[in-house]
Amino acid sequence: MKARAAVAWEANKPLSIEEIDVQGPKEGEVLVRMVATGVCHTDAYTLSGMDPEGRFPAILGHEGGGIVEAVGKGVTSVTVGDHVIPLYTAECRQCKFCLSGKTNLCSAVRATQGIGVMPDGSSRFSLNGKPIYHYMGTSTFSEYTVLPEIALARISKAAPLDKVCLLGCGITTGIGAVHNTAKVEPGATVAVFGLGAIGLSAIQGAVMAKAGRIIAVDINPSRFELARQLGATDCINPQEHSLPIQEVLIDMTDGGVDYSFECIGNVEVMRQALECCHKGWGESIIIGVAGAGQEISTRPFQLVTGRVWRGSAFGGVKGRTELPNYVERYMSGQINIDDFVSHNLPLEQINTAFDLLHQGNGIRTVIHF
Amino acid sequence: MKARAAVAWEANKPLSIEEIDVQGPKEGEVLVRMVATGVCHTDAYTLSGMDPEGRFPAILGHEGGGIVEAVGKGVTSVTVGDHVIPLYTAECRQCKFCLSGKTNLCSAVRATQGIGVMPDGSSRFSLNGKPIYHYMGTSTFSEYTVLPEIALARISKAAPLDKVCLLGCGITTGIGAVHNTAKVEPGATVAVFGLGAIGLSAIQGAVMAKAGRIIAVDINPSRFELARQLGATDCINPQEHSLPIQEVLIDMTDGGVDYSFECIGNVEVMRQALECCHKGWGESIIIGVAGAGQEISTRPFQLVTGRVWRGSAFGGVKGRTELPNYVERYMSGQINIDDFVSHNLPLEQINTAFDLLHQGNGIRTVIHF
Repeated sequence: MKARAAVAWEANKPLSIEEIDVQGPKEGEVLVRMVATGVCHTDAYTLSGMDPEGRFPAILGHEGGGIVEAVGKGVTSVTVGDHVIPLYTAECRQCKFCLSGKTNLCSAVRATQGIGVMPDGSSRFSLNGKPIYHYMGTSTFSEYTVLPEIALARISKAAPLDKVCLLGCGITTGIGAVHNTAKVEPGATVAVFGLGAIGLSAIQGAVMAKAGRIIAVDINPSRFELARQLGATDCINPQEHSLPIQEVLIDMTDGGVDYSFECIGNVEVMRQALECCHKGWGESIIIGVAGAGQEISTRPFQLVTGRVWRGSAFGGVKGRTELPNYVERYMSGQINIDDFVSHNLPLEQINTAFDLLHQGNGIRTVIHF
Repeated sequence: MKARAAVAWEANKPLSIEEIDVQGPKEGEVLVRMVATGVCHTDAYTLSGMDPEGRFPAILGHEGGGIVEAVGKGVTSVTVGDHVIPLYTAECRQCKFCLSGKTNLCSAVRATQGIGVMPDGSSRFSLNGKPIYHYMGTSTFSEYTVLPEIALARISKAAPLDKVCLLGCGITTGIGAVHNTAKVEPGATVAVFGLGAIGLSAIQGAVMAKAGRIIAVDINPSRFELARQLGATDCINPQEHSLPIQEVLIDMTDGGVDYSFECIGNVEVMRQALECCHKGWGESIIIGVAGAGQEISTRPFQLVTGRVWRGSAFGGVKGRTELPNYVERYMSGQINIDDFVSHNLPLEQINTAFDLLHQGNGIRTVIHF
């Protein structure tokens, strides 16, 4: 079938809107009609050409909401008409990782997903007979996309897809990192570095976890208003302090924070986030994705004296199991998504969404098909 | 009173045996007659002049066993004749750290301990009226030493002090890191880097935790026999492999180990220990003390994909509360100490103990007073 899609032909060039060919779903696969998708920094990172896994031409996008259009042979967990959120972290419920009870990093389709193809090694997208790669197993910048059944969370039909699509990445990542990875307890002191969709959602998550103090850190003070509105108790701009930010935080918290979250992808900030943690028990969670080849470092004394360095991918959330409940919590007013949608644009204007992202203008643009 | 002691007059010089003056215990302090002490790599590190906290002249030593000779005003938890193990990690049971339930890093005497004096800011050691510094709050290389009451574990009088003195550092550190810091569960796969007293004790700890596989890693294969005897299931010499050791371990464990322990103090090995951990849940514990200013590093992707980087000091053990039970477990045959004692020497030959340490000859020399 035909589909309108935004194709990334090569790195560092605008996407172009094309009428591509989408092959129907094979065994275990599902054809999804996208209704809306967010445009996230990870899409921009891959488009920049810096992502070592990035392959072109590709259909980017991984923060989508859609409706099942057709199912392949053997598909049992979703049916035509179901509302779904594509998962770049699948959940097969059968692999060593899924069965471990310790992680959400399902390995079932990871290898093929990383090289831009479906589990059978081929692509479902093409133009004039030439294949176009998938991206993150989701490729939500297409009117129609194909995913493995195990990469779809079936959600309430009552939820607005042009809002809950953002649960496909940033918002869930921030909230999940607080609950699943850090397991923040009531009364805890929390620092959040970087106030994009992930950081702002980590603030939401900390409020839900009843953290006692939530310190938002960003060099862009225009984000402080929304941070406060979501529940930050303090907002700090490191550029307004002459001392290193870890010392500022240690001073203002009598020894350091209980939990910190790096939501930027900057390896220097990752170090600051670790070192502002309290001796004896402070835990720092890396969420941001650093540039290829970049490394974090610190003195081992930081760990020997009780700090813990962790990371989190998709907030440690098992998408098929947990995401439907995130949607319910949005519907009942416990999770704020609406304030994250700063712009709404049609697919044809998707390059404007990337411009807004680069300008730091607003939190998220939602693309409507 | 007078005491025979090994004084470190300056960095990188042999210790000299002196008849020093020891002042009696002040309020909250205890005078201990040392019966035996181990000589540990940390003593050698400080003697080398590399330790930024090292001050001279000092009385080194921190792995001792002794008998209470006198108590100062207000001391209630020990009495004359009690057998004790000095604690370089005190346990006041009143500070923020002790009350947190999350760490053994008591802060009560940390500041003064770090600069070689008692909590009142002065030293109890002198020679010809000139003060000699304390070391790690313990100074076990003296026939008589003075400690705060909160830095003494009272143990069974039936235990041989020339064996259980080793519970004052290395053996407890290794076992405690497995139980308290990593919380290794039955069936887990464990890698131990470095087969000194700490690493060999981590192996013991892993056996006690019923680990399924215990992989000992050292470039000195002469340690493998004892490692196997204590319970290592595999012994690996990285110099016999052309691949990086983390890849070797990932291959032989189908994806990596569940827990790894760095028991050397080498920042490169710390990285290897992290990177040999299993994606999704592997945890690496840094126990070794790195040289001043040295840093650990890795790609943040290692953490984002589920590995955890931790550290452990004195095995996370609260000395006054837990150490008496370590002694009991030695007495009942659950903890092996005897095989760690490779040499016994009188105080007068303490420099030989340092020579043996530098040569890697044996595990521990015990000094007898």
